[in-house]
Amino acid sequence: MKITFIGIGHMGEPMVGRLLASGFSVTIHNRTRERALPLLEKGALWAETPAQGASGCDILATMVADDNALESLIGPGGILDSMPEGAVHLSFSTISVGYATSLEKRHGTRGQGFVSAPVFGRPDAVREGRLRLLCAGKEGPVQKVLPLLNALGPRVFHLGENPATANIVKLSGNFMIASVLETLGETFALAKKSGVDPALFLEIVNDSLFHSPLYENYGRTMAEKRYDPPGFTMDLGLKDINLVLEAANTLRVPLPLGGILRDSFLSGLAQGRQSLDWSAVVLSHYERAGIPVGE
Amino acid sequence: MKITFIGIGHMGEPMVGRLLASGFSVTIHNRTRERALPLLEKGALWAETPAQGASGCDILATMVADDNALESLIGPGGILDSMPEGAVHLSFSTISVGYATSLEKRHGTRGQGFVSAPVFGRPDAVREGRLRLLCAGKEGPVQKVLPLLNALGPRVFHLGENPATANIVKLSGNFMIASVLETLGETFALAKKSGVDPALFLEIVNDSLFHSPLYENYGRTMAEKRYDPPGFTMDLGLKDINLVLEAANTLRVPLPLGGILRDSFLSGLAQGRQSLDWSAVVLSHYERAGIPVGE
Amino acid sequence: MKITFIGIGHMGEPMVGRLLASGFSVTIHNRTRERALPLLEKGALWAETPAQGASGCDILATMVADDNALESLIGPGGILDSMPEGAVHLSFSTISVGYATSLEKRHGTRGQGFVSAPVFGRPDAVREGRLRLLCAGKEGPVQKVLPLLNALGPRVFHLGENPATANIVKLSGNFMIASVLETLGETFALAKKSGVDPALFLEIVNDSLFHSPLYENYGRTMAEKRYDPPGFTMDLGLKDINLVLEAANTLRVPLPLGGILRDSFLSGLAQGRQSLDWSAVVLSHYERAGIPVGE
Amino acid sequence: MKITFIGIGHMGEPMVGRLLASGFSVTIHNRTRERALPLLEKGALWAETPAQGASGCDILATMVADDNALESLIGPGGILDSMPEGAVHLSFSTISVGYATSLEKRHGTRGQGFVSAPVFGRPDAVREGRLRLLCAGKEGPVQKVLPLLNALGPRVFHLGENPATANIVKLSGNFMIASVLETLGETFALAKKSGVDPALFLEIVNDSLFHSPLYENYGRTMAEKRYDPPGFTMDLGLKDINLVLEAANTLRVPLPLGGILRDSFLSGLAQGRQSLDWSAVVLSHYERAGIPVGE
Repeated sequence: MKITFIGIGHMGEPMVGRLLASGFSVTIHNRTRERALPLLEKGALWAETPAQGASGCDILATMVADDNALESLIGPGGILDSMPEGAVHLSFSTISVGYATSLEKRHGTRGQGFVSAPVFGRPDAVREGRLRLLCAGKEGPVQKVLPLLNALGPRVFHLGENPATANIVKLSGNFMIASVLETLGETFALAKKSGVDPALFLEIVNDSLFHSPLYENYGRTMAEKRYDPPGFTMDLGLKDINLVLEAANTLRVPLPLGGILRDSFLSGLAQGRQSLDWSAVVLSHYERAGIPVGE
Repeated sequence: MKITFIGIGHMGEPMVGRLLASGFSVTIHNRTRERALPLLEKGALWAETPAQGASGCDILATMVADDNALESLIGPGGILDSMPEGAVHLSFSTISVGYATSLEKRHGTRGQGFVSAPVFGRPDAVREGRLRLLCAGKEGPVQKVLPLLNALGPRVFHLGENPATANIVKLSGNFMIASVLETLGETFALAKKSGVDPALFLEIVNDSLFHSPLYENYGRTMAEKRYDPPGFTMDLGLKDINLVLEAANTLRVPLPLGGILRDSFLSGLAQGRQSLDWSAVVLSHYERAGIPVGE
Repeated sequence: MKITFIGIGHMGEPMVGRLLASGFSVTIHNRTRERALPLLEKGALWAETPAQGASGCDILATMVADDNALESLIGPGGILDSMPEGAVHLSFSTISVGYATSLEKRHGTRGQGFVSAPVFGRPDAVREGRLRLLCAGKEGPVQKVLPLLNALGPRVFHLGENPATANIVKLSGNFMIASVLETLGETFALAKKSGVDPALFLEIVNDSLFHSPLYENYGRTMAEKRYDPPGFTMDLGLKDINLVLEAANTLRVPLPLGGILRDSFLSGLAQGRQSLDWSAVVLSHYERAGIPVGE
Repeated sequence: MKITFIGIGHMGEPMVGRLLASGFSVTIHNRTRERALPLLEKGALWAETPAQGASGCDILATMVADDNALESLIGPGGILDSMPEGAVHLSFSTISVGYATSLEKRHGTRGQGFVSAPVFGRPDAVREGRLRLLCAGKEGPVQKVLPLLNALGPRVFHLGENPATANIVKLSGNFMIASVLETLGETFALAKKSGVDPALFLEIVNDSLFHSPLYENYGRTMAEKRYDPPGFTMDLGLKDINLVLEAANTLRVPLPLGGILRDSFLSGLAQGRQSLDWSAVVLSHYERAGIPVGE
């Protein structure tokens, strides 16, 4: 089985590493070859262009930043034109719901398969075998890519035949994290003005209520003001919130939290915080409450 | 040390039970004596009135529904008039921040102490020794009540000398839970309209992101439509949200989530759901999204 | 007919002036006598205390700042105890809905009438005969006060037998103005960041859409940064928004705008703007959008 | 001067009529020729295709539904390819800010001018000479189209050299109307539950505060439940709200009202009201407050 993987970034790199370690033969491509060198040393093959990688492959996996980055691979003279009939495009990227739907159609008209498989987890989760994978697409293509997915993480969640549902779930997950950030941000502001140390506040509510490492980690990042370097930036956060709102708009689902989150992030970006960790949204709440920010 | 405990409801009953089991001698009072019988059998003494219970006590503990219920004990001819100088009022109830502040003043003018000690946990948490306790008040009174608090749960969080801060933290905790309910409610509506089963959605995000029993429990209650009998009712939820908004108003802290939560609960109450579990707020989101509710 | 008017502030003063000019005989009282001097010169009589003014009167009119100010007149040894049976309390103040309801009950148990008659308009509207008056209460008392109301302004709107409805309408009116301020604030921020002068933006939309002097006046105040001296302060604005939210809470009516308005005003107050004109809420929007405020 | 006007809908038809009456010679094109017949009888010339209309013209005016409709005229083999160098595209449509910006660039690379001139007013405003016009673009092209604009309405507002600003102002105007609808909707729900007739409530607040025909008209439409036939549909309303949010997103301006408006409209669309007048948004508020809708 010929596998090509395009997009050797901070996620793609350990994912391919894991596939190689599991015995898969993988051809890779990346905008800059330099980034790919460690994998080439581990036995990956190199494709000079996306088209070359797509040509003759069975599975074409992609892991890139967003719709535009993916479209630049897909479009004229790219993957779509070069993939053989019957091959499957396995898309790991966090892309929009509308784009996922259109991709399936475009592949379908050429007899190619499309499986949407966005992931939950950061690079260390890949390396430590803790990555969670979503999976949605038609039965045939899904069966074909399943061995890869199973090699990448211990749990693969199946979401049916419509690829876009996997993207909705992924985006909704990020929306839920953003809601946690908002909740922590607002209550931290209230705690501060009440004279309660946010770090103590966090310890109390997590020990008493949530028992969640996610609350623990983001709350600490806020309490200790560690917004830089970012784990996930403010502007990527806003991008995903907007993608959820876009999907909700199409489905006619009001999302009151969405407007709130959008504005808190926009307010942070208006102050120039686009490259800080998205937990820096707490600063928007300090500002509105008249608490000196002292980044 | 003479301890009186007023308010033998679903929380007060196991709390006194625990104190008795720890060797404390406790006098109790409740609006209806019937409710107190099991404790009297375990060795508690009975006071005919709040005033009788307060008279001559060292510590007067109260655990009642809200400001009004507590004030009916405190007011003319009640606790305030009967407690000895030097005695301490230990308040476990979830009361408003403003009322806690005024209580400390009123006790102070009579040389009585006041400690605010709201708790996190339901009756089974008390019985299983998992109750979390907050604690705020002046050093002297706090030292006096500490043995009781330590008998009631494994962790007591100290919040300084201002009693009201304990109430703010308690209310903020409930506010955070309400935010989780809102987040689950909105994303469940989105999932449903996308064709994703909320139960599966919950399993995915909790396994991938939160790892939190609180998300698990409330999410399941929603997915399985188990709103009745309630663990905590919609109207109590709204009461606490309003108390947080009131405190935030005094402190000049904007709380965008507060407006959202308030409206989602009001919307549920407008449909007559005041006595359902507060997780039934999800129904407000189904309705707005045009999803048949089928309670 | 013996008429007493308590509360000779910036509204009460011209209102009594108008009554005198219409030929009514009016006894007045105010916390500080100084404020009342011009009216005494015009023929008003002076009462040393609220009780003295209430004693023997047919109509007892009040125009004060809020619930607390009115209760300080009403309470023990005050109006309630001194008004004769059959006399009517004519309340012009912007008080809470709950308080209006309780006032009617308390007067009712003593055989006294209660009419709620909050007004729309500033002092110059009174002087120029443009004041609008609301009016709600039982038929008998309303008939009794109608000649006074008709003397005060060209239009009296009747709202039925329940006094509280007049207060809801008055508060809703202020809520609608606050919504205009919010709308202008948000769109001015958008205009500014687009490079469009807010004054031009205002001229366009008012000439093209609203044709409303209220939009014109508030928009200009914002565009010309004339927040001081205030026509109506930020903290009074917040007070009325909170009273609307309180009424909506009791009636189970979600008010999404209410949460938004509350937060915009709180945000302004957190920056110390409580005494500026409530149009200064626009500054909250400039700040969040990263526009230098330059008050 | 050769003028071509494409898009003979309910707005385009009276606009061309006005131009003809002012002595301009106008060539027209529309998807369906039938719609254009009355104008052809009044002396307009017919172009078989957009390209034919664009070829050799001095001013190419367009008035269509949205970005997509305009792009279908502009794209390959259309206006862009056929307009002479030096000619000006005069765009009356309510299009997105981003699209207006891209249009200017695309015309610019071909030496063509672009002026954005969205309008405020309905067909009867055109016929009665009350149309308001915005106008933004480079000096040369603006001078060229000014005689047309002046013939179309009594006031033309100049917004500088950046065409997109005219679109932002137009969209913001619609955003402000939607805010009025939201405000009326929320307060009508409150009034109803208080036992106050919305029609009376409207009369009071408009007579006392706004003095605005826009409040009058929309408030009456709501009070009298005249949502069909629509003046402007719910789904067009949502479209424009989304376009404002999109522009605000790019400019980093939080718009709390935007989230509220979006959700109120989405909630209406989720109940199938996309083709009702946008004042039908009031029904969303009745529903949430538990008021029987009875459309």
